[in-house]
Amino acid sequence: MDLFYLPELDATVTQVLFPKEESKHISRVLRKQHGDKLRATNGKGFEAVIELIQVNNHKVEGEIKNRIEHTPLPYQLHLAIAPTKNINRLEWFLEKATEIGIHSITPLLCEHSERKIIKPERLEKIIIAALKQSQNVYLPKLKPLQSFEDFIPQFPKGYIAHCHEGEKTAFFNAIEAKGDITLLIGPEGDFSIREVEMALQHDYTAVSLGKQRLRTETAALVGCHTVALKAQ
Amino acid sequence: MDLFYLPELDATVTQVLFPKEESKHISRVLRKQHGDKLRATNGKGFEAVIELIQVNNHKVEGEIKNRIEHTPLPYQLHLAIAPTKNINRLEWFLEKATEIGIHSITPLLCEHSERKIIKPERLEKIIIAALKQSQNVYLPKLKPLQSFEDFIPQFPKGYIAHCHEGEKTAFFNAIEAKGDITLLIGPEGDFSIREVEMALQHDYTAVSLGKQRLRTETAALVGCHTVALKAQ
Repeated sequence: MDLFYLPELDATVTQVLFPKEESKHISRVLRKQHGDKLRATNGKGFEAVIELIQVNNHKVEGEIKNRIEHTPLPYQLHLAIAPTKNINRLEWFLEKATEIGIHSITPLLCEHSERKIIKPERLEKIIIAALKQSQNVYLPKLKPLQSFEDFIPQFPKGYIAHCHEGEKTAFFNAIEAKGDITLLIGPEGDFSIREVEMALQHDYTAVSLGKQRLRTETAALVGCHTVALKAQ
Repeated sequence: MDLFYLPELDATVTQVLFPKEESKHISRVLRKQHGDKLRATNGKGFEAVIELIQVNNHKVEGEIKNRIEHTPLPYQLHLAIAPTKNINRLEWFLEKATEIGIHSITPLLCEHSERKIIKPERLEKIIIAALKQSQNVYLPKLKPLQSFEDFIPQFPKGYIAHCHEGEKTAFFNAIEAKGDITLLIGPEGDFSIREVEMALQHDYTAVSLGKQRLRTETAALVGCHTVALKAQ
């Protein structure tokens, strides 16, 4: 059954009105009719089965039939990633991370960042599409672009994956199966030595994601899946 | 230092001649000169440092200086995947799997496959580009497109990831840290019940790659990284 995203949904809601675009999709593309059922989530772990009570191209209304409160993931992964020079690479990371499961993403502005601008609206759309497609009921939170210097003191005691020399723990062994995890993934040119030192000063642990040299978006996805696997 | 792919390279070779296209790249783009050094691999775990003894746009020649025999991965993952309807999705899987490490890939023709044709030359190019970019010295082997029925009896005792009901083991727990592993990933419409039964009859183990519903290419990458992590 199709899953829709309705942020306003919660346990108290009894009827829902689908947005114009969704209404069009439901009536014209899916050709749903009065009495048909759909699933929807608020992206916060709440899911509902909705029976349609009115269907036309501009307006689709439904009544909540069943309510499901999903148990949240045992961990909360907050991944801070330097947006890739080629934005498609960041976009596919967002799609894949949404499928696998991630709590929040902060685009990080680093010393070696080549890309300094992103379009949050476009990235949000990609995350919502992936949520619906993967039938995931937790919408990853895309946080505003932030500079490395501002981010670190705000989120200390995380993990930083870098390619410089120095002692590193395998990320899989460094983390617990539950709780909050902050992971930093650098730009194509890696974090600067200065940035790595600043992170370590704020109780970050330097981690390795494997022997291979990974692209920014691959490293981010590998980090995301490592946490999912640890919590499994 | 840049890594080049020279399949003819081995421990006995003392001089190498770069192909026309590579020669152009080395002289025009990288602006290398006589005496400069490059790294090259044969994609079979052998790496060499090469000192250039002749550089022009059509012909770049080099002399082998150092030789490194890398220890092979402790496992050999053979992943059979139904090519995705949108070929870009298969292409990025190949790029990412090459970065993370995979032994061979067989494009699999399944009952529910929407895509029945692939262009091996194009896919090969993507794998080689990813090998060079990730400085990996093992080139994944892209095998010819094969039907599910032909594949299964040839490679029994593997693992099949499907979304149908039935008993499944978590893939991470099902596999050993070394040895040969064959993993099957189905098309957008999943494997057919008939295909799943055929695999089980050939001693396949039904596995789960996590709670989430993953796209074909995401499932394949998750499977690939699960093996890499187990062997770590």
